Amino acid sequence: MEGIFITMEGPDGSGKTTQIKLLKQYLEQKGYDILIAREPGGTVISEAIREIILNKEYQEMSYMTELLLYAAARAQLVSQVIKPALEDGKAVICDRFIESSAVYQGIGRGLGVDTVYDVNHYAIGGVNPQLTIYLDLDAENGIKRKKDQAELDRMEMEDLTFHQRVVEGYRQLAQLYPERIFSVDATLPIETIHQILTEEVERRFFHE
Amino acid sequence: MEGIFITMEGPDGSGKTTQIKLLKQYLEQKGYDILIAREPGGTVISEAIREIILNKEYQEMSYMTELLLYAAARAQLVSQVIKPALEDGKAVICDRFIESSAVYQGIGRGLGVDTVYDVNHYAIGGVNPQLTIYLDLDAENGIKRKKDQAELDRMEMEDLTFHQRVVEGYRQLAQLYPERIFSVDATLPIETIHQILTEEVERRFFHE
Repeated sequence: MEGIFITMEGPDGSGKTTQIKLLKQYLEQKGYDILIAREPGGTVISEAIREIILNKEYQEMSYMTELLLYAAARAQLVSQVIKPALEDGKAVICDRFIESSAVYQGIGRGLGVDTVYDVNHYAIGGVNPQLTIYLDLDAENGIKRKKDQAELDRMEMEDLTFHQRVVEGYRQLAQLYPERIFSVDATLPIETIHQILTEEVERRFFHE
Repeated sequence: MEGIFITMEGPDGSGKTTQIKLLKQYLEQKGYDILIAREPGGTVISEAIREIILNKEYQEMSYMTELLLYAAARAQLVSQVIKPALEDGKAVICDRFIESSAVYQGIGRGLGVDTVYDVNHYAIGGVNPQLTIYLDLDAENGIKRKKDQAELDRMEMEDLTFHQRVVEGYRQLAQLYPERIFSVDATLPIETIHQILTEEVERRFFHE
Protein backbone atom coordinates (compact mmCIF):
# COMPACT_ATOMS: atom_id res chain seq x y z
CA MET A 1 0.00 0.00 0.00
CA GLU A 2 1.32 3.42 -0.95
CA GLY A 3 1.35 6.33 1.46
CA ILE A 4 -1.15 9.20 1.24
CA PHE A 5 -0.25 12.77 2.12
CA ILE A 6 -3.12 15.18 2.89
CA THR A 7 -2.79 18.63 4.42
CA MET A 8 -5.54 20.58 6.21
CA GLU A 9 -5.61 24.36 5.87
CA GLY A 10 -7.82 27.19 7.05
CA PRO A 11 -7.86 30.14 9.44
CA ASP A 12 -7.81 29.58 13.17
CA GLY A 13 -11.23 28.46 14.33
CA SER A 14 -12.20 26.86 11.01
CA GLY A 15 -12.46 23.39 12.56
CA LYS A 16 -9.29 21.75 11.22
CA THR A 17 -8.71 19.65 14.35
CA THR A 18 -12.22 18.21 14.31
CA GLN A 19 -12.11 17.35 10.61
CA ILE A 20 -8.67 15.77 10.94
CA LYS A 21 -10.00 13.52 13.70
CA LEU A 22 -12.93 12.42 11.55
CA LEU A 23 -10.77 11.95 8.46
CA LYS A 24 -8.40 9.83 10.52
CA GLN A 25 -11.23 7.44 11.48
CA TYR A 26 -12.31 7.22 7.86
CA LEU A 27 -8.80 6.42 6.61
CA GLU A 28 -8.31 3.86 9.40
CA GLN A 29 -11.40 2.07 8.11
CA LYS A 30 -9.68 2.02 4.71
CA GLY A 31 -6.88 0.06 6.36
CA TYR A 32 -4.28 2.77 6.77
CA ASP A 33 -1.96 3.41 9.64
CA ILE A 34 -2.32 7.12 10.28
CA LEU A 35 0.17 9.77 11.19
CA ILE A 36 -1.15 13.14 12.27
CA ALA A 37 1.24 16.07 12.42
CA ARG A 38 0.76 19.73 13.17
CA GLU A 39 2.71 22.77 12.10
CA PRO A 40 4.78 24.40 13.33
CA GLY A 41 5.96 21.46 15.44
CA GLY A 42 5.80 17.68 15.36
CA THR A 43 9.44 16.96 16.27
CA VAL A 44 11.54 18.02 19.25
CA ILE A 45 13.50 20.43 17.04
CA SER A 46 10.40 21.77 15.27
CA GLU A 47 8.69 22.36 18.62
CA ALA A 48 11.75 24.31 19.81
CA ILE A 49 11.47 26.42 16.64
CA ARG A 50 7.71 26.78 17.22
CA GLU A 51 8.39 28.31 20.63
CA ILE A 52 10.49 31.01 19.01
CA ILE A 53 7.94 31.70 16.25
CA LEU A 54 4.96 32.06 18.57
CA ASN A 55 6.75 33.79 21.49
CA LYS A 56 4.81 36.97 22.29
CA GLU A 57 7.99 38.70 23.48
CA TYR A 58 9.44 38.65 19.95
CA GLN A 59 7.42 41.51 18.44
CA GLU A 60 10.56 42.68 16.60
CA MET A 61 10.77 39.49 14.52
CA SER A 62 11.24 40.33 10.83
CA TYR A 63 8.77 38.80 8.39
CA MET A 64 11.59 37.06 6.54
CA THR A 65 12.85 35.50 9.79
CA GLU A 66 9.33 34.27 10.45
CA LEU A 67 9.12 32.72 6.97
CA LEU A 68 12.51 31.01 7.34
CA LEU A 69 11.68 29.66 10.81
CA TYR A 70 8.44 28.11 9.56
CA ALA A 71 10.40 26.60 6.66
CA ALA A 72 13.06 25.25 9.05
CA ALA A 73 10.44 23.63 11.31
CA ARG A 74 8.80 22.16 8.19
CA ALA A 75 12.08 20.80 6.81
CA GLN A 76 12.68 18.92 10.05
CA LEU A 77 9.11 17.59 10.22
CA VAL A 78 9.28 16.37 6.62
CA SER A 79 12.66 14.65 6.86
CA GLN A 80 12.21 13.14 10.29
CA VAL A 81 8.51 12.25 10.35
CA ILE A 82 6.47 12.72 7.16
CA LYS A 83 8.85 11.21 4.61
CA PRO A 84 9.56 8.03 6.64
CA ALA A 85 5.82 7.59 7.31
CA LEU A 86 4.97 7.87 3.61
CA GLU A 87 7.72 5.40 2.77
CA ASP A 88 6.09 3.10 5.34
CA GLY A 89 2.79 3.33 3.44
CA LYS A 90 1.04 5.42 6.09
CA ALA A 91 -1.64 8.05 5.54
CA VAL A 92 -0.24 11.35 6.77
CA ILE A 93 -2.58 14.21 7.67
CA CYS A 94 -0.82 17.47 8.43
CA ASP A 95 -2.50 20.36 10.24
CA ARG A 96 -1.17 23.30 8.18
CA PHE A 97 1.67 23.05 5.65
CA ILE A 98 3.08 25.15 2.78
CA GLU A 99 -0.19 26.95 2.02
CA SER A 100 -0.16 28.40 5.53
CA SER A 101 3.20 30.00 4.76
CA ALA A 102 1.91 31.16 1.37
CA VAL A 103 -1.06 32.98 2.89
CA TYR A 104 0.29 34.11 6.30
CA GLN A 105 3.79 35.13 5.23
CA GLY A 106 3.37 35.52 1.46
CA ILE A 107 0.08 37.44 1.48
CA GLY A 108 -0.60 38.47 5.11
CA ARG A 109 2.96 39.73 5.63
CA GLY A 110 3.33 40.80 2.00
CA LEU A 111 6.52 38.80 1.24
CA GLY A 112 4.93 37.39 -1.92
CA VAL A 113 3.68 33.90 -2.66
CA ASP A 114 6.54 33.18 -5.09
CA THR A 115 9.16 33.87 -2.41
CA VAL A 116 7.37 31.51 -0.03
CA TYR A 117 7.11 28.71 -2.58
CA ASP A 118 10.79 29.17 -3.59
CA VAL A 119 12.09 28.83 -0.02
CA ASN A 120 9.72 25.99 0.79
CA HIS A 121 10.64 24.14 -2.36
CA TYR A 122 14.00 23.61 -0.67
CA ALA A 123 12.47 22.93 2.75
CA ILE A 124 10.28 20.00 1.69
CA GLY A 125 12.63 18.45 -0.87
CA GLY A 126 9.91 17.10 -3.18
CA VAL A 127 7.57 15.74 -0.48
CA ASN A 128 4.44 17.46 -1.79
CA PRO A 129 0.94 16.84 -0.44
CA GLN A 130 -1.34 14.99 -2.86
CA LEU A 131 -4.39 16.85 -1.56
CA THR A 132 -4.79 20.07 0.41
CA ILE A 133 -8.14 20.62 2.09
CA TYR A 134 -9.08 24.23 2.76
CA LEU A 135 -11.79 24.96 5.34
CA ASP A 136 -13.16 28.29 4.19
CA LEU A 137 -14.30 30.74 6.87
CA ASP A 138 -14.54 34.54 7.06
CA ALA A 139 -11.79 35.98 9.25
CA GLU A 140 -14.35 37.56 11.61
CA ASN A 141 -15.86 34.15 12.36
CA GLY A 142 -12.50 32.47 12.87
CA ILE A 143 -11.34 35.06 15.36
CA LYS A 144 -14.64 34.92 17.22
CA ARG A 145 -14.42 31.16 17.60
CA LYS A 146 -10.79 31.32 18.65
CA LYS A 147 -11.14 34.13 21.20
CA ASP A 148 -13.42 31.96 23.28
CA GLN A 149 -10.40 29.73 23.76
CA ALA A 150 -7.05 30.02 25.51
CA GLU A 151 -4.53 32.86 25.47
CA LEU A 152 -3.48 34.10 22.01
CA ASP A 153 0.04 33.59 20.57
CA ARG A 154 2.14 36.02 18.47
CA MET A 155 0.41 35.12 15.18
CA GLU A 156 -3.10 35.13 16.64
CA MET A 157 -2.50 38.60 18.10
CA GLU A 158 -2.46 40.12 14.59
CA ASP A 159 -5.37 42.41 13.80
CA LEU A 160 -8.49 41.65 11.80
CA THR A 161 -7.12 43.18 8.57
CA PHE A 162 -4.22 40.71 8.65
CA HIS A 163 -6.54 37.76 9.11
CA GLN A 164 -8.80 39.05 6.33
CA ARG A 165 -5.82 39.13 3.96
CA VAL A 166 -5.04 35.55 5.01
CA VAL A 167 -8.56 34.35 4.17
CA GLU A 168 -8.54 36.27 0.89
CA GLY A 169 -5.19 34.60 0.12
CA TYR A 170 -6.54 31.12 0.84
CA ARG A 171 -9.46 31.79 -1.52
CA GLN A 172 -7.13 33.01 -4.28
CA LEU A 173 -4.88 29.95 -3.98
CA ALA A 174 -7.89 27.61 -3.98
CA GLN A 175 -9.06 29.27 -7.22
CA LEU A 176 -5.60 29.18 -8.78
CA TYR A 177 -4.91 25.52 -7.92
CA PRO A 178 -8.27 23.71 -7.85
CA GLU A 179 -6.66 20.36 -8.62
CA ARG A 180 -4.41 20.60 -5.60
CA ILE A 181 -6.55 22.55 -3.13
CA PHE A 182 -10.08 21.42 -2.31
CA SER A 183 -12.18 24.12 -0.67
CA VAL A 184 -15.16 23.50 1.58
CA ASP A 185 -17.46 25.88 3.49
CA ALA A 186 -16.43 25.66 7.15
CA THR A 187 -19.80 27.02 8.38
CA LEU A 188 -21.60 23.84 7.31
CA PRO A 189 -22.41 21.28 10.01
CA ILE A 190 -19.41 19.17 11.07
CA GLU A 191 -20.90 15.93 9.72
CA THR A 192 -21.77 17.54 6.38
CA ILE A 193 -18.20 18.79 5.94
CA HIS A 194 -16.86 15.36 6.80
CA GLN A 195 -19.20 13.80 4.26
CA ILE A 196 -18.02 16.20 1.52
CA LEU A 197 -14.37 15.55 2.39
CA THR A 198 -14.67 11.77 2.37
CA GLU A 199 -16.39 11.90 -1.03
CA GLU A 200 -13.49 13.96 -2.35
CA VAL A 201 -10.85 11.68 -0.81
CA GLU A 202 -12.74 8.65 -2.14
CA ARG A 203 -12.79 10.17 -5.62
CA ARG A 204 -9.11 11.12 -5.60
CA PHE A 205 -7.50 8.15 -3.94
CA PHE A 206 -9.81 5.14 -4.14
CA HIS A 207 -11.51 5.35 -7.53
CA GLU A 208 -9.99 4.92 -10.94
CA MET B 1 29.86 59.21 5.60
CA GLU B 2 28.60 56.00 4.04
CA GLY B 3 28.49 52.72 5.90
CA ILE B 4 31.01 49.94 5.30
CA PHE B 5 30.08 46.27 5.52
CA ILE B 6 32.93 43.76 5.97
CA THR B 7 32.56 40.10 6.88
CA MET B 8 35.25 37.86 8.40
CA GLU B 9 35.34 34.20 7.43
CA GLY B 10 37.52 31.19 8.18
CA PRO B 11 37.49 27.87 10.03
CA ASP B 12 37.31 27.79 13.81
CA GLY B 13 40.68 28.69 15.27
CA SER B 14 41.77 30.83 12.30
CA GLY B 15 41.95 33.98 14.43
CA LYS B 16 38.83 35.83 13.28
CA THR B 17 38.14 37.38 16.69
CA THR B 18 41.66 38.79 17.03
CA GLN B 19 41.67 40.27 13.52
CA ILE B 20 38.21 41.77 14.00
CA LYS B 21 39.45 43.51 17.15
CA LEU B 22 42.45 44.97 15.32
CA LEU B 23 40.38 45.96 12.28
CA LYS B 24 37.93 47.70 14.59
CA GLN B 25 40.71 49.89 16.03
CA TYR B 26 41.93 50.73 12.54
CA LEU B 27 38.45 51.74 11.34
CA GLU B 28 37.87 53.79 14.50
CA GLN B 29 40.98 55.76 13.64
CA LYS B 30 39.39 56.39 10.25
CA GLY B 31 36.53 58.06 12.11
CA TYR B 32 33.94 55.33 11.96
CA ASP B 33 31.50 54.22 14.59
CA ILE B 34 31.87 50.44 14.59
CA LEU B 35 29.35 47.70 14.94
CA ILE B 36 30.65 44.17 15.49
CA ALA B 37 28.26 41.27 15.05
CA ARG B 38 28.73 37.53 15.17
CA GLU B 39 26.81 34.73 13.54
CA PRO B 40 24.70 32.93 14.40
CA GLY B 41 23.44 35.46 16.95
CA GLY B 42 23.59 39.19 17.52
CA THR B 43 19.93 39.77 18.41
CA VAL B 44 17.73 38.22 21.09
CA ILE B 45 15.85 36.22 18.44
CA SER B 46 19.02 35.19 16.57
CA GLU B 47 20.61 34.04 19.84
CA ALA B 48 17.52 31.92 20.57
CA ILE B 49 17.92 30.39 17.08
CA ARG B 50 21.65 29.92 17.75
CA GLU B 51 20.85 27.84 20.82
CA ILE B 52 18.81 25.45 18.69
CA ILE B 53 21.46 25.23 15.94
CA LEU B 54 24.36 24.48 18.27
CA ASN B 55 22.48 22.28 20.77
CA LYS B 56 24.39 19.01 21.09
CA GLU B 57 21.19 17.12 21.86
CA TYR B 58 19.86 17.77 18.35
CA GLN B 59 21.94 15.21 16.44
CA GLU B 60 18.88 14.36 14.32
CA MET B 61 18.72 17.87 12.81
CA SER B 62 18.38 17.67 9.01
CA TYR B 63 20.93 19.60 6.96
CA MET B 64 18.16 21.63 5.34
CA THR B 65 16.78 22.60 8.75
CA GLU B 66 20.27 23.71 9.74
CA LEU B 67 20.60 25.83 6.59
CA LEU B 68 17.20 27.46 7.12
CA LEU B 69 17.90 28.19 10.79
CA TYR B 70 21.18 29.92 9.94
CA ALA B 71 19.33 31.90 7.28
CA ALA B 72 16.58 32.84 9.76
CA ALA B 73 19.10 34.04 12.35
CA ARG B 74 20.85 36.01 9.59
CA ALA B 75 17.61 37.61 8.35
CA GLN B 76 16.90 38.91 11.84
CA LEU B 77 20.46 40.19 12.36
CA VAL B 78 20.41 42.00 9.01
CA SER B 79 17.02 43.66 9.41
CA GLN B 80 17.34 44.57 13.07
CA VAL B 81 21.04 45.42 13.41
CA ILE B 82 23.19 45.50 10.26
CA LYS B 83 20.89 47.41 7.92
CA PRO B 84 20.10 50.20 10.45
CA ALA B 85 23.82 50.51 11.31
CA LEU B 86 24.80 50.87 7.64
CA GLU B 87 22.07 53.46 7.15
CA ASP B 88 23.60 55.27 10.12
CA GLY B 89 26.98 55.35 8.33
CA LYS B 90 28.65 52.85 10.65
CA ALA B 91 31.35 50.33 9.75
CA VAL B 92 29.90 46.87 10.34
CA ILE B 93 32.22 43.89 10.82
CA CYS B 94 30.44 40.57 10.95
CA ASP B 95 32.07 37.41 12.31
CA ARG B 96 30.82 34.85 9.73
CA PHE B 97 28.07 35.54 7.17
CA ILE B 98 26.76 33.98 3.95
CA GLU B 99 30.07 32.31 3.00
CA SER B 100 29.91 30.29 6.23
CA SER B 101 26.58 28.86 5.06
CA ALA B 102 27.99 28.30 1.58
CA VAL B 103 30.90 26.21 2.87
CA TYR B 104 29.45 24.54 5.99
CA GLN B 105 25.98 23.73 4.64
CA GLY B 106 26.54 24.00 0.88
CA ILE B 107 29.83 22.09 0.69
CA GLY B 108 30.40 20.45 4.11
CA ARG B 109 26.83 19.13 4.28
CA GLY B 110 26.57 18.71 0.52
CA LEU B 111 23.42 20.81 -0.01
CA GLY B 112 25.10 22.72 -2.81
CA VAL B 113 26.37 26.29 -2.91
CA ASP B 114 23.59 27.42 -5.27
CA THR B 115 20.90 26.29 -2.84
CA VAL B 116 22.59 28.19 -0.04
CA TYR B 117 22.92 31.40 -2.06
CA ASP B 118 19.29 31.11 -3.26
CA VAL B 119 17.87 30.84 0.25
CA ASN B 120 20.20 33.52 1.61
CA HIS B 121 19.38 35.88 -1.21
CA TYR B 122 15.96 36.12 0.43
CA ALA B 123 17.37 36.21 3.97
CA ILE B 124 19.59 39.26 3.50
CA GLY B 125 17.32 41.24 1.16
CA GLY B 126 20.11 42.94 -0.76
CA VAL B 127 22.37 43.82 2.19
CA ASN B 128 25.54 42.33 0.70
CA PRO B 129 28.99 42.70 2.26
CA GLN B 130 31.36 44.93 0.28
CA LEU B 131 34.35 42.86 1.35
CA THR B 132 34.69 39.36 2.76
CA ILE B 133 37.99 38.51 4.44
CA TYR B 134 38.90 34.84 4.51
CA LEU B 135 41.53 33.67 7.01
CA ASP B 136 42.96 30.57 5.37
CA LEU B 137 44.02 27.71 7.63
CA ASP B 138 44.26 23.94 7.16
CA ALA B 139 41.45 22.13 8.97
CA GLU B 140 43.92 20.17 11.12
CA ASN B 141 45.41 23.38 12.50
CA GLY B 142 42.04 24.97 13.16
CA ILE B 143 40.78 22.00 15.12
CA LYS B 144 44.01 21.79 17.11
CA ARG B 145 43.81 25.44 18.13
CA LYS B 146 40.12 25.11 18.99
CA LYS B 147 40.38 21.88 21.01
CA ASP B 148 42.58 23.67 23.52
CA GLN B 149 39.55 25.80 24.28
CA ALA B 150 36.13 25.24 25.82
CA GLU B 151 33.62 22.46 25.21
CA LEU B 152 32.68 21.85 21.56
CA ASP B 153 29.21 22.61 20.11
CA ARG B 154 27.20 20.59 17.57
CA MET B 155 29.03 22.01 14.53
CA GLU B 156 32.48 21.73 16.10
CA MET B 157 31.84 18.07 16.92
CA GLU B 158 31.92 17.16 13.21
CA ASP B 159 34.87 15.05 12.13
CA LEU B 160 38.06 16.14 10.41
CA THR B 161 36.80 15.18 6.92
CA PHE B 162 33.90 17.61 7.32
CA HIS B 163 36.20 20.45 8.36
CA GLN B 164 38.55 19.64 5.47
CA ARG B 165 35.63 19.96 3.03
CA VAL B 166 34.82 23.31 4.66
CA VAL B 167 38.36 24.64 4.16
CA GLU B 168 38.44 23.30 0.60
CA GLY B 169 35.13 25.09 0.02
CA TYR B 170 36.46 28.39 1.36
CA ARG B 171 39.44 28.12 -0.97
CA GLN B 172 37.23 27.40 -3.98
CA LEU B 173 34.96 30.36 -3.24
CA ALA B 174 37.95 32.66 -2.75
CA GLN B 175 39.24 31.59 -6.17
CA LEU B 176 35.83 31.95 -7.81
CA TYR B 177 35.11 35.40 -6.38
CA PRO B 178 38.46 37.17 -5.88
CA GLU B 179 36.88 40.62 -6.12
CA ARG B 180 34.52 39.87 -3.27
CA ILE B 181 36.58 37.51 -1.09
CA PHE B 182 40.08 38.48 0.03
CA SER B 183 42.12 35.52 1.25
CA VAL B 184 45.04 35.73 3.68
CA ASP B 185 47.26 33.05 5.23
CA ALA B 186 46.14 32.65 8.84
CA THR B 187 49.45 31.10 9.94
CA LEU B 188 51.28 34.41 9.49
CA PRO B 189 52.00 36.47 12.62
CA ILE B 190 48.97 38.38 13.92
CA GLU B 191 50.47 41.80 13.21
CA THR B 192 51.46 40.79 9.66
CA ILE B 193 47.92 39.63 8.89
CA HIS B 194 46.54 42.86 10.28
CA GLN B 195 48.96 44.84 8.10
CA ILE B 196 47.87 42.94 4.97
CA LEU B 197 44.21 43.45 5.82
CA THR B 198 44.48 47.18 6.45
CA GLU B 199 46.33 47.62 3.14
CA GLU B 200 43.48 45.82 1.38
CA VAL B 201 40.79 47.82 3.19
CA GLU B 202 42.71 51.02 2.48
CA ARG B 203 42.89 50.11 -1.20
CA ARG B 204 39.21 49.18 -1.47
CA PHE B 205 37.53 51.85 0.61
CA PHE B 206 39.83 54.83 1.01
CA HIS B 207 41.69 55.18 -2.30
CA GLU B 208 40.28 56.25 -5.62
